[in-house]
Amino acid sequence: MNKQQLFENIQHKKSFLCIGLDTDIKKIPTYLLKDQDPIFTFNKAIIDATADLCIAYKPNLAFYESLGVKGWIAFEKTVNYLKENYPDQFIIADAKRGDIGNTSEMYARSFFDELDIDSVTVAPYMGEDSVKPFLLYPEKWVILLALTSNKGSQDFQLTEDKSGEHLFEKVLKKSQEWANDEQMMYVVGATQGKMFKDIRKLVPNHFLLVPGVGAQGGSLEEVCKYGMNSTCGLIVNSSRAIIYADNTEKFAEAARTAAKEVQEQMAEQLKAIL
Amino acid sequence: MNKQQLFENIQHKKSFLCIGLDTDIKKIPTYLLKDQDPIFTFNKAIIDATADLCIAYKPNLAFYESLGVKGWIAFEKTVNYLKENYPDQFIIADAKRGDIGNTSEMYARSFFDELDIDSVTVAPYMGEDSVKPFLLYPEKWVILLALTSNKGSQDFQLTEDKSGEHLFEKVLKKSQEWANDEQMMYVVGATQGKMFKDIRKLVPNHFLLVPGVGAQGGSLEEVCKYGMNSTCGLIVNSSRAIIYADNTEKFAEAARTAAKEVQEQMAEQLKAIL
Repeated sequence: MNKQQLFENIQHKKSFLCIGLDTDIKKIPTYLLKDQDPIFTFNKAIIDATADLCIAYKPNLAFYESLGVKGWIAFEKTVNYLKENYPDQFIIADAKRGDIGNTSEMYARSFFDELDIDSVTVAPYMGEDSVKPFLLYPEKWVILLALTSNKGSQDFQLTEDKSGEHLFEKVLKKSQEWANDEQMMYVVGATQGKMFKDIRKLVPNHFLLVPGVGAQGGSLEEVCKYGMNSTCGLIVNSSRAIIYADNTEKFAEAARTAAKEVQEQMAEQLKAIL
Repeated sequence: MNKQQLFENIQHKKSFLCIGLDTDIKKIPTYLLKDQDPIFTFNKAIIDATADLCIAYKPNLAFYESLGVKGWIAFEKTVNYLKENYPDQFIIADAKRGDIGNTSEMYARSFFDELDIDSVTVAPYMGEDSVKPFLLYPEKWVILLALTSNKGSQDFQLTEDKSGEHLFEKVLKKSQEWANDEQMMYVVGATQGKMFKDIRKLVPNHFLLVPGVGAQGGSLEEVCKYGMNSTCGLIVNSSRAIIYADNTEKFAEAARTAAKEVQEQMAEQLKAIL
């Protein structure tokens, strides 16, 4: 999916919501456990209940890997289900990968070739040759970690170099030598508030993937105030607050209600640019 | 496995070799492709041919994931085969993981609980709360990326802060607040040569996982000269130069010959401390 298509979906749906499929076998309604593939059954129900309200889904690989082979089956089924039934959804493999060139090549093959996923989150620590193999696929995206939503983001990402530049700013600058805003997005946590203002100076046109609204406490209003650009430029993720809104047989309905609430707030924010 | 046991294995085998199982379906002998699970068949043959010469195996997750569900099956079978037949081998899941707390928890569950693997490589970019969940398992190890073997290591890892401290040095210092040398190791590329001297000032007692000897061009002699400590403190990995030494029916034999050559060099280097 290219940038223009993504923006068209946002305009059409009045939403820039991404729903994080952090599907945890210990948190889904217990009656689903009788099912042959409870993780996929859960995801399918969530997707069917929310697809008209969001423009992206973000399965978090850790949750699938923690179940080994069964988890990978559920992950692949989820991706295939999305591709067949909701081809307008932007799929993000939240994997935070990144390794030496020949290894990153294998990860790229896995996500882009085998599974035809739109994008993958990548960690920048290992530098250019760890990121570049992901950039060889047209209309596929690298979503590079810049300033994350967690407390630990302060440990290294905010380190200042001699000129006062933070590490995450260096990541934003340097990585623009590798790809432009048609192939690269950045992870910036919703909990970072006003930092979005500085970030937009460095990447005015890029899409930002913004986790941390909801369970992690970030404010949608603040993110929009400082982070929205003329093509929206934001994909805001919510995981737990939506998919675990309820854990009875009404979980999908409750997820829809939670997603709808966020979508309506987003529609309001989008008035500024649409 | 604890540090003492690891050192005993090194003394006993006169080796600190780790063999990287970067098993690529496109590089293994073609006659194996007739097999039901060619990746596992290949790994099993390599392991059986080399286990007395090395103290660790490092399956690289990317190579398994690139095959989807089939790859995960091969990965799990490889780990189980090692645990059952060569329980003295230190297993490293080379995964370069690291995410917000609840996600890193899932990765830790996956590698340590489900698969009972000894260690996992972790990327430091997201800071303390992305690493800590891996440290909750006794006698399991985090191998944190510090100064990697690839060219891109220069992009961010060598960034100097105001006091002249490199980012990788900050990682080495800061992470010692999270765990000691009984639970933490560091990745330092063999291609970094004399940098080992500076690194040893910061982490005199830690084990270092050293990739980059072999295909990537690092020198074993230099690594030992500047990096070895009184309990060896080095696990030197070679992947491609050993496992792809030959791609005929004699591949396992050739892998043994290649491993033997490295092991003999290591025995020589170990004379300095044993």
